[in-house]
Amino acid sequence: MTTQVIILNGGSSAGKSGIVRCLQDVLPAPWLAFGIDSLVDALPAKLRGTDGGIEFAADGAVQVGTDFRALEAAWMEGVAATARAGARVVVDDVFLGGAASQQRWQKALDGLDVLWVGVRCAPEVAAAREIARGDRAQGMASGQADVVHEGVSYDLEVDTTHTESLVCARAIAARVR
Amino acid sequence: MTTQVIILNGGSSAGKSGIVRCLQDVLPAPWLAFGIDSLVDALPAKLRGTDGGIEFAADGAVQVGTDFRALEAAWMEGVAATARAGARVVVDDVFLGGAASQQRWQKALDGLDVLWVGVRCAPEVAAAREIARGDRAQGMASGQADVVHEGVSYDLEVDTTHTESLVCARAIAARVR
Amino acid sequence: MTTQVIILNGGSSAGKSGIVRCLQDVLPAPWLAFGIDSLVDALPAKLRGTDGGIEFAADGAVQVGTDFRALEAAWMEGVAATARAGARVVVDDVFLGGAASQQRWQKALDGLDVLWVGVRCAPEVAAAREIARGDRAQGMASGQADVVHEGVSYDLEVDTTHTESLVCARAIAARVR
Amino acid sequence: MTTQVIILNGGSSAGKSGIVRCLQDVLPAPWLAFGIDSLVDALPAKLRGTDGGIEFAADGAVQVGTDFRALEAAWMEGVAATARAGARVVVDDVFLGGAASQQRWQKALDGLDVLWVGVRCAPEVAAAREIARGDRAQGMASGQADVVHEGVSYDLEVDTTHTESLVCARAIAARVR
Repeated sequence: MTTQVIILNGGSSAGKSGIVRCLQDVLPAPWLAFGIDSLVDALPAKLRGTDGGIEFAADGAVQVGTDFRALEAAWMEGVAATARAGARVVVDDVFLGGAASQQRWQKALDGLDVLWVGVRCAPEVAAAREIARGDRAQGMASGQADVVHEGVSYDLEVDTTHTESLVCARAIAARVR
Repeated sequence: MTTQVIILNGGSSAGKSGIVRCLQDVLPAPWLAFGIDSLVDALPAKLRGTDGGIEFAADGAVQVGTDFRALEAAWMEGVAATARAGARVVVDDVFLGGAASQQRWQKALDGLDVLWVGVRCAPEVAAAREIARGDRAQGMASGQADVVHEGVSYDLEVDTTHTESLVCARAIAARVR
Repeated sequence: MTTQVIILNGGSSAGKSGIVRCLQDVLPAPWLAFGIDSLVDALPAKLRGTDGGIEFAADGAVQVGTDFRALEAAWMEGVAATARAGARVVVDDVFLGGAASQQRWQKALDGLDVLWVGVRCAPEVAAAREIARGDRAQGMASGQADVVHEGVSYDLEVDTTHTESLVCARAIAARVR
Repeated sequence: MTTQVIILNGGSSAGKSGIVRCLQDVLPAPWLAFGIDSLVDALPAKLRGTDGGIEFAADGAVQVGTDFRALEAAWMEGVAATARAGARVVVDDVFLGGAASQQRWQKALDGLDVLWVGVRCAPEVAAAREIARGDRAQGMASGQADVVHEGVSYDLEVDTTHTESLVCARAIAARVR
């Protein structure tokens, strides 16, 4: 079997995007990178900040509505189809629903060989990095740090608290078949 | 029938992205927006500027290789699957291969109700806008302005030379079922 | 006399940034470009959205406070000093205070040879471009279109409603000594 | 005496920008942030990649020419004038010329109370972060890591190799009067 999809799950500012870019660098084959940020970028502007769409509160809380969920479900099918058509795909996501989020991906990715990766970061360190990046509402990192992992099963977990993205990426790449 | 996919084709700096954002604003249902730029963003950095990937020359010429073509084909399948799963999708692309590019999309989108839109802009106006945006190699706009439309069939064409993106978007929206 | 500073004033989405990039392209000497956006980028994140700083309301209204005004005044002195030290500088600004804003610049730029340029755009066209760019609160363009020009004196005015940025830039460049 | 300017010097990907954003967060007064990146953004596009301007080679080497040096000198005067006019300013720079770069700043900042800060990062860690950020030519981080500190005098040095930006920022803030 060949790994077809890598799913990285972790809270905001845990370091997922950096790991994705390092994975694309260290993996010998070309991998496409998609993620929750690319989905949000694909939304109509009017769905940001509305009931049915996705809202980012000033305290870092994130609320998603029914329109968002419907588009997200279709997008997951698209990611799965991209992998089935032969492109290797790495996805970074924030499982706001924990185990329920993973089940949505499992349903979409049915039949594909998936590597599930948890990206951990100590909440206080993620919060510090949130300040350093300066483009996220303060509170999102610490609010998501633990809850996104509740009930989720992984093939491996990495922790960016004291480990560089590149080192985490190499550990993940070692598990890619 | 309900329009499931809108494909906008036009050269660099013809104004496709602006039309996409206006379409997402004027269309009552939420539409996801994907495009050649989002595909390029999803590529490994090491595929930009290499033989197999995608190269942007200083004179604005764009060359794509076999790795890029393979990933692009899989991505097209993903866009199609997203639409089949119920999300309405607007795509902006640059048909560097003209009719051959359209055929690749037609194959991927088989069975879907697609609205094909040509986005024209006078080469000298596109070249002027290329200078105004400042983030593209000079020469790309004029080099692509005509060649991307060769042999391509459309349901409608819009021309941004003297018409605002929002007005073009309304003309397109009027054709969406 | 040699033109040392060009000040462009106009409402949001009137097309100032595009004109600036075209000016930097068509003017034979190298000109540095600064503007209200670069000042806002230089602010602490915590000054955005607070009483003393700068607030962007959902309806496009912009409010600035005393901390912002103090930093802005110092920044204007910096722009003037850059020009006095020999760099030619083009600045784009939004004169929220109309004539009072111009007086602040006149005080800072005292003794320098300044070309004052009004950048006009029909409010409904600016509002349409605001939708097309997708990164500004809707209402800012139309709300600022006229008020920023009240009581302001110009050496020349350009209008982007039906004229490309590059053509406007050439008209301005023709007045640069 | 009150600290009027903080100068951070370090190689590419050493973590300067993150420290700047943290400093703006932890310092009680509002500080403006300028830096070599904001100067490069202010340049005409045509000065990037040319003899007289600034060139970024594929191997990460950076070359600057006489036009760039002249504009940079004027910009330094502007930063100094901004501070003299009462705004507190934090600057991040890359002293490609080592001690000579510091002397240029010392000349411009004459009479101001300046806190000089060296930002160190182990070359191999900076190189890893360069891959993780994905927007810099590989080789720039390791090439600049040591050379930018040669002959430079600091009030304090921080090292991001094993220390978060926020912790470094707090150490710097403790030295601000």
